[in-house]
Formats: sequence, structure tokens, C-alpha cells
Amino acid sequence: MLKNKTPYYAVIFSNQRITTDDVFYQNLSKSLRASAKSQPGYLGLESYSNPDGTGTTISYWEDLKSIAAWRKNAEHIVAQHYGRDTAYTNYTVRVCEVQREYQFSKEKNIS
Amino acid sequence: MLKNKTPYYAVIFSNQRITTDDVFYQNLSKSLRASAKSQPGYLGLESYSNPDGTGTTISYWEDLKSIAAWRKNAEHIVAQHYGRDTAYTNYTVRVCEVQREYQFSKEKNIS
Repeated sequence: MLKNKTPYYAVIFSNQRITTDDVFYQNLSKSLRASAKSQPGYLGLESYSNPDGTGTTISYWEDLKSIAAWRKNAEHIVAQHYGRDTAYTNYTVRVCEVQREYQFSKEKNIS
Repeated sequence: MLKNKTPYYAVIFSNQRITTDDVFYQNLSKSLRASAKSQPGYLGLESYSNPDGTGTTISYWEDLKSIAAWRKNAEHIVAQHYGRDTAYTNYTVRVCEVQREYQFSKEKNIS
């Protein structure tokens, strides 16, 4: 991800999945990531999963308005229902203002 | 993690590891997590790793002062050097203010 000018916003969505071999969930996640990318104000997304079913998706946005719009996206609403009904034991959503950012790269230190 | 009163702070440390089978790194991470827990202002920590060597550690703190103190912790400084010299191809550190938090749990919806 390119270095962004602070402040911008992050949504940290940390979760515990009920099962790690839900093909419908995997396809839904893939489709949802593509939808997020096409939203106004989208800056980037990272997703990580541990073998024990815990995971996090962090999405980055220009402003709170973009986050509110994404929250109300039709496909996202379907996914939210599926998540609560079927996919997750529990989750936490945190809306954050990114105040500072440092980057390090072996190729070139741009922090 | 218990629900915290906003605002509080998050440090998102997303990284690409050079190798996933570095035993020294694994022991250092374990020791470092124990040290972080004993720091003033520490609220919690989550760590996730993908099989491709990408991962993130998100630590939560009461205030920016606690983050600054943890950044200067002696063991943490050693780990930062090891990270840049040996463990990581690249990483990004983001210091964030958590403005809102929602939780969902199958046992009890406390969002």
C-alpha cells in the first residue's frame, strides 16, 4: 500500500470464525473485497487469518463519510447478516483515525 | 478483550516476514508480548499471520504517552533492530486513535 497522508481512517474488524472451511464465506469475502475497492474514499485493505479461526480485516478510508457509505452498501449489509447468523462466534469493529504512519522497506527506507 | 471506553489508541504493525520458520523471531515475539503486557497503559494485543509470511500485530493503549514509552523500552528497541536487520522485508506502523468500538458475540450481543 502506498503511504497515505495522515489523518485518514482505519476500520479494524477482528473476528473469531465458527469454521475455517466455509466455501460460501470465502467467496463472499472475495466478492466483498472487490466491492470495497470500488467505493469512493477507499484507500486499501489488509486481511489476515490464523489457523485457529481468528482473523482481522483492516480497511483504510479517506474519511468517516466513506466508511458510513460502505457500511450501508447493499452487498455489505447481506454479508453483515451472514456474519452474525452463520460465520462468526464474535467480532469487534473499531473505527480509528490514523494519526501517524511509518514505513520501512529493505529496498528503500521511506519511513 | 474487554470493551474499552473510547477514545483509546491502537498501533497497527503490519509486516512481511523474510521467512516464517525463524525460531529466534518466534521466541523474541513471545517475550516481547509478555513485556508489552506489563507496560503502563497497555490494554490488549492481537496478532495474526498468513501462511505467505504477511502478518499484523495490533496493540491497544490508553494514551500516546504509553505508546511512546513502549517504543523506547530496551527489549523493544533490540527487537526493532532485529526486525529491520533480519526479520522483515517491509513493514508499516500506524498510530491510531480508536474513536468508536462495536462488539458482537453469539453468547450476548453487547454492541
